[in-house]
Amino acid sequence: MNSDIILKAVDKNREWAISKLNEYLKIPSVSAQNSGIKESVAFLQRTFTEIGLDVKICEAGGSPVVFASKNVGGNKTILFYNHYDVQPPEPLDEWLSPPFEPTIRDGKIFARGVSDNKANLITRIAAVKTFKDVNTNPSVNIKFVVEGEEEVGSEHLPNFTMQYRNLLDTDLCIWESASKDEVGRPQIILGCKGMVHGELVAKGANTDLHSSRAVIIPNPAWRVVWALATIKDKNENILIKGFYDDAVIPDENEKKLLEEIPFEEDKLRKNLGLSSFVNNLSGFDLKHRFFYSPTFTINGFTGGYQGKGSKTVLPKIATAKFDIRLVPNMQPDDIVKKLRKHLDENGFADIEIADVKGYPPARTPYNNPYVRIIAETGKEVWQKEMVVYPSTPASGPMYLFSKIAPCIGLGVGHAQSNSHAPNESVYIEDFYIGTKHIANILAKMGG
Amino acid sequence: MNSDIILKAVDKNREWAISKLNEYLKIPSVSAQNSGIKESVAFLQRTFTEIGLDVKICEAGGSPVVFASKNVGGNKTILFYNHYDVQPPEPLDEWLSPPFEPTIRDGKIFARGVSDNKANLITRIAAVKTFKDVNTNPSVNIKFVVEGEEEVGSEHLPNFTMQYRNLLDTDLCIWESASKDEVGRPQIILGCKGMVHGELVAKGANTDLHSSRAVIIPNPAWRVVWALATIKDKNENILIKGFYDDAVIPDENEKKLLEEIPFEEDKLRKNLGLSSFVNNLSGFDLKHRFFYSPTFTINGFTGGYQGKGSKTVLPKIATAKFDIRLVPNMQPDDIVKKLRKHLDENGFADIEIADVKGYPPARTPYNNPYVRIIAETGKEVWQKEMVVYPSTPASGPMYLFSKIAPCIGLGVGHAQSNSHAPNESVYIEDFYIGTKHIANILAKMGG
Repeated sequence: MNSDIILKAVDKNREWAISKLNEYLKIPSVSAQNSGIKESVAFLQRTFTEIGLDVKICEAGGSPVVFASKNVGGNKTILFYNHYDVQPPEPLDEWLSPPFEPTIRDGKIFARGVSDNKANLITRIAAVKTFKDVNTNPSVNIKFVVEGEEEVGSEHLPNFTMQYRNLLDTDLCIWESASKDEVGRPQIILGCKGMVHGELVAKGANTDLHSSRAVIIPNPAWRVVWALATIKDKNENILIKGFYDDAVIPDENEKKLLEEIPFEEDKLRKNLGLSSFVNNLSGFDLKHRFFYSPTFTINGFTGGYQGKGSKTVLPKIATAKFDIRLVPNMQPDDIVKKLRKHLDENGFADIEIADVKGYPPARTPYNNPYVRIIAETGKEVWQKEMVVYPSTPASGPMYLFSKIAPCIGLGVGHAQSNSHAPNESVYIEDFYIGTKHIANILAKMGG
Repeated sequence: MNSDIILKAVDKNREWAISKLNEYLKIPSVSAQNSGIKESVAFLQRTFTEIGLDVKICEAGGSPVVFASKNVGGNKTILFYNHYDVQPPEPLDEWLSPPFEPTIRDGKIFARGVSDNKANLITRIAAVKTFKDVNTNPSVNIKFVVEGEEEVGSEHLPNFTMQYRNLLDTDLCIWESASKDEVGRPQIILGCKGMVHGELVAKGANTDLHSSRAVIIPNPAWRVVWALATIKDKNENILIKGFYDDAVIPDENEKKLLEEIPFEEDKLRKNLGLSSFVNNLSGFDLKHRFFYSPTFTINGFTGGYQGKGSKTVLPKIATAKFDIRLVPNMQPDDIVKKLRKHLDENGFADIEIADVKGYPPARTPYNNPYVRIIAETGKEVWQKEMVVYPSTPASGPMYLFSKIAPCIGLGVGHAQSNSHAPNESVYIEDFYIGTKHIANILAKMGG
């Protein structure tokens, strides 16, 4: 399909797109505060219907998932994954304009959730509408999945993908978001890390005690410290047997992609007030670690006295909250099993691994043919090369969809978009170009 | 001096003593809540005056120290150290009778502070009064020091002992408290452990971060764990170079004393729900460790997320609160210096040792001649052998007075006195016999 007509139609659609975005941004859909759920679902149902899609509101135990689709009789199908929930706007006094009153300054539109990821969903919706406006169809069948719990851990999304598996067949999944990178090049993101989080729990006496007793009564805080110290050494090597066994190692082509990725390490280091990164890494090695290494992180300790000043107490219980970020092809269950074995073999059978939750990593191979299509259609509208990121260093439920089809992250944020922070923004021009990119994909993906 | 007359006079004084104790126990002198300070000082001033002592209210920066004395022209002087403050009574709903309404049940008097250590002070006051009642003088000059900040760390007591050093010369200091032991034998306590407490502080980035960054950003929680793991191994050996150098080792006679001390280890272990004590110790070795070993105790962790559930955060700061209990002849400054050196030499120069406070241990040699006098005068009134404890496993400001004279702990508590806990009590009969013991010492100590 020649996409010129479509791209011109996107231009005509600007006013509609920006007014839809404004309407959407005004809904305070904060999942952590259980706010704006119904309004979001109603808005999406109305909007998808308006652009000619069939809508199904899917219940899977939590906030409803909005499913919308149009079968144009194409040989291929594209599925867009987005979420209608946003992060809490707090701290409110750091916003220059109210978080749910979208405001334009310096060519950017500011509002909570605009970058993560309401603007992205509107680019996709506006692109689909464009085909309706010019009385044609995209080259592919279209599906949308918009969930409402991403910012609180997508707890019911596995239920959804099981219960509604028959709706979800697709050839390509476009993931929720991406940004321009630090030097202004639009990203293509091929994956995200997996996750295991939980707590190591050690128990001592059945009551807190005067610390004079510590001379003979076991101290669970020491048990946790000793156990943790066997897990990672001070050179950041994770010592669990077999931990790295399945961790993918980048091939030469992937290393080349990695070299392409800008990483302003000095700026980052100075902004964070650090004298160095872990193991004094820099350059390629630092980037390599950032995107390709799994982690074992202590998120916090709980146990004993945590207030001001001193209290000479012997705690009865101590826990360390941890998360483990997984790279392909590490599996959460396998890692938890190896951690359990490690603790047992090192004399810490008494330490419980509690509250474990997790999900696997996901990554689409850089040589998947859709990566090329997306890069080429993108270059045409952005007028510059897109940059392929093997992964974000963060985690997400992409694995649920990557079992069905390759997943690729796209979006219209920028390096200072402040997702999850006050004064979140996207450039309006990026929003329009991103819409063209989606329209271009829809025109050309079917071949 | 023949003490028979005095001991009979103590019997005649019972009603006065118990009514004084009641009056004293009704004052809610909770230093942590800044309550009852003035009333306590007034009560003590009135009571010391009533028994013929000169009183001086000493200001040294905190709650006043009550000093009372009588020079009888003796060759020797005895000084009694006590404190008028008590622990907070909370949790109130666990008291069978209100904590500041002394109540008699089963031959015991229940009230907050009765064991720690109001009854002990009244035994001493009642003993002195007895000499006045029979128009004679003790064989020794008498001094009392009663401070009001013991339960909150005796912060101003070092100031007091410096400012008022000229008042404090003595030949023997009777320390605040002791109890009957678990098999009902009255204790003589010869010392207490010293103390260093503080925090290990590690700093990372200048802000908490999303834990996906932990792959390249140093995590202060790991720094604290690694540092702690170099300080004590899982066999409870403290690995700081020279830590044990000055720690006294008991001689054969002291070991014999230690064998004499009852220690119901199975009962203690079961009460605390433990399968074993540290290093599976039992019998003599367990007791030896309890009384003669220094400790390094983690009192609590602070850093990262400590609430319910998970938060995948990378903390900017992590601290471990610790206390170190010192045995003779370890010195706090020396131990802190060795800890600093240990951290530096093990690659943890970045870890700060903050909020350090401490004081040395104190111990009177078991063969000090006053120990014999106290044991003999005690046996006469208790009608059984007293048991000599080299130390309590707890800490206290005894060192300030042990620089002046030998210090020996005596008191009328019992093994279930519940000091620092609800339903604190002493046996009334022990209170009377304890008074006789003090009277007997005052009659005979001068020779």
